[in-house]
Amino acid sequence: MKNLVLGIDIGGTNTVFGLVDKSGHIVYKEEISTFGQEPVINLLNRLKEKIDVFLKINSDLDLIGIGVGAPNGNYYTGVIQDPPNMSWGDVNIVSMLTEKFACHVKLTNDANAAALGEKKYGRAKNMNDFVTITLGTGLGSGIFTGGVVLYGHDSTAGELGHLSIDQNGRDCNCGLKGCLEMYVSANGIKQTVLNFQNKYPDDLFLSSLDPNYIDGKLIDMAVDSGTESAKRIYEYTGEKLGFGLAQAASILCPEAYIFYGGFSQAGERLLRPTRIAFEKYLMHNLRGNIEIIQSGLPQGQAGILGAASIIDNF
Amino acid sequence: MKNLVLGIDIGGTNTVFGLVDKSGHIVYKEEISTFGQEPVINLLNRLKEKIDVFLKINSDLDLIGIGVGAPNGNYYTGVIQDPPNMSWGDVNIVSMLTEKFACHVKLTNDANAAALGEKKYGRAKNMNDFVTITLGTGLGSGIFTGGVVLYGHDSTAGELGHLSIDQNGRDCNCGLKGCLEMYVSANGIKQTVLNFQNKYPDDLFLSSLDPNYIDGKLIDMAVDSGTESAKRIYEYTGEKLGFGLAQAASILCPEAYIFYGGFSQAGERLLRPTRIAFEKYLMHNLRGNIEIIQSGLPQGQAGILGAASIIDNF
Repeated sequence: MKNLVLGIDIGGTNTVFGLVDKSGHIVYKEEISTFGQEPVINLLNRLKEKIDVFLKINSDLDLIGIGVGAPNGNYYTGVIQDPPNMSWGDVNIVSMLTEKFACHVKLTNDANAAALGEKKYGRAKNMNDFVTITLGTGLGSGIFTGGVVLYGHDSTAGELGHLSIDQNGRDCNCGLKGCLEMYVSANGIKQTVLNFQNKYPDDLFLSSLDPNYIDGKLIDMAVDSGTESAKRIYEYTGEKLGFGLAQAASILCPEAYIFYGGFSQAGERLLRPTRIAFEKYLMHNLRGNIEIIQSGLPQGQAGILGAASIIDNF
Repeated sequence: MKNLVLGIDIGGTNTVFGLVDKSGHIVYKEEISTFGQEPVINLLNRLKEKIDVFLKINSDLDLIGIGVGAPNGNYYTGVIQDPPNMSWGDVNIVSMLTEKFACHVKLTNDANAAALGEKKYGRAKNMNDFVTITLGTGLGSGIFTGGVVLYGHDSTAGELGHLSIDQNGRDCNCGLKGCLEMYVSANGIKQTVLNFQNKYPDDLFLSSLDPNYIDGKLIDMAVDSGTESAKRIYEYTGEKLGFGLAQAASILCPEAYIFYGGFSQAGERLLRPTRIAFEKYLMHNLRGNIEIIQSGLPQGQAGILGAASIIDNF
C-alpha cells in the first residue's frame, strides 16, 4: 500500500483538493465549487464521493490523513470561524471530516497552509524564519519563527494584511485605517488605480483600465511595453509593501518574504520597487540580509501541498 | 552543595549581578560601574573578584552556570555586538566568561532576558505568547511565541522600539523616522515635553519641566494632583504606544504585553490611556483578549533573574 495525504484548500469560490504522496507529488487533483451559501455538509459530501471513487479504482493507495487550509481556520480548535463570503457560521470541520473519513484530520488557515507548503516542498526548505505573503483579493500571510508556524495565543496571529502603515490611511473593510491590504492586493490596486485616474485624467493607459475589474496581466503587459503610468502603479504599491515588510521585519527578522497568489505573478515588476522601499525603511543592521522572492511551488498546487503539509511525520 | 546560577545584567552605566537559586531567590547581589570606555576585561575582572570572595566564604554553594543579558547580545554567536555607549566593539563575552569561570555560559540581549525572567519567575509563568516591553532611555522588547523566545533569523528579532508608527514621524537616532521609541521612552517623552512647551507656553507645569532631565516621578505626582497638562503627556504617549502595540498584535497575537523599566513605574497613569488606544486600533477579533500589565518581578531584580533564566534546566 502507498500512503497518501488529502490536502483540501477551501476558497470563497472554489475548493481545490488533491492526494499527495510523501515526495510531494500530487497523484490526483480536483477543483469543485465551494457553494458557500449551502450548508458545509454539501461540500463535504461531494468531496467524499470524488475521493471514494478514486480510491476504489486505485486500491493500492491508502489515505492516512487529511489537512485542510481554509480562511479563518483555527488550528487549535479545528473550527472554521465564520469565514467571509460563506454562510457557514462556525463549523468544526475537523470533527466532521474525521467522522466521514475515519482518519487523522488537521486544520489551519489558508495563509499558514501556504507557509507549511513552502517549508516542506518549496523555497523555504532550509529556512526556519520566513514569511509567506499571498496576494489575491486581499493580502494574507503565514509566519514561521524558529522552525514552527507562529500561531499566537489563539491561532489568529500573522495578519500582516491588517498591519496599519498609515494611521490616517485608506479605510479598510475591517473597520481600521491604513491596513496594508488596502494598498497591496487586488482591492488595494483598484483603489490606487481610481486615485491615479483622478490625478492623471488624460493618461491613456489609466483611462483604459476598469477599476471594478483589475486584471494584473494588463498592467504587467503595459509595464513590459514601457508605459510609465503602469510602472507607477507598481512603484506606488511596492513603496507601501516595502514599508510594511520593513515594520514586520523589525519584529520578526525573517530570512525571506516569499510571495504567492494571483498578483504575485507580476514578479519582479512589483518585487523590484518593493525591495528598494524595503531596504530604505529597514533598520540598518538588517539591510541586505532579508530576501524578497517568489514562491517555488507550482501555481495551482500550492494550496493542496500546503494543506497536506499540516499532517506531521508524513 | 547548593547549585546557583550567576545572572549578569550589563547596562550602559551600571552592571548588576547576582547569584540565584532554583526557586528564584537571589542569595547575593551587587551593582558595579560598567566603565564602558575601559576594555571589557576590566569589568569581568572586578566581577570575578567579587564572586570569588563570596563563594569562598560560602563553600556550600556551587556555581553551575552564568547567564548574561546585554544590549546587542547575540544568543547564537555569544558576541555582544558593538553595544551603544561602550567602546568595546564586538566582544565574545561567552568565551571570555567560560575561560574565567569554567562553567556553562549563555548570552542574550537585555530585552530577551527580561522576557525569560518574566516567564520563569514573573507574571508570564503560564503564558506561551507574550511580549515584555522595557521603558527606559529607549524602548526594548522581548517576545515569546509558542513558549520560546523569538530570536529571528540572526537573533536580532523583536525590535519593537524601531517599529515605525508614522512614516513621516520624528527622526530616530537609528536613521529611520517615526520609530515607536521616539514617542514612548525617556527620549520620546523629552521630545513630547518640548513640543508641548512650544504649544502651550503659558502652562505652569510644562514650564517647570526641564526637558533635558525628564523625571517620571514629577509627571506622576502632577497627574495624581490633577494637573491636566501632565495627564496630556501620558495620554499622548499612550495613544502612540497603543497604536504600536496594536500593529505588533496583528502579527504576534500575544496573550499579554508586560511592562518593565523606569518609565513603567507610571503604571496605570500610562497604561490606562494605552489600553484605550490599543483597543481602538486593534482588529475586532482580538479586542478584549490581550492584557496590558506591569511586570511581576521586583524592580531591581528583573535584570538578574532574567539573565539567570537563560540557563536551561535549572
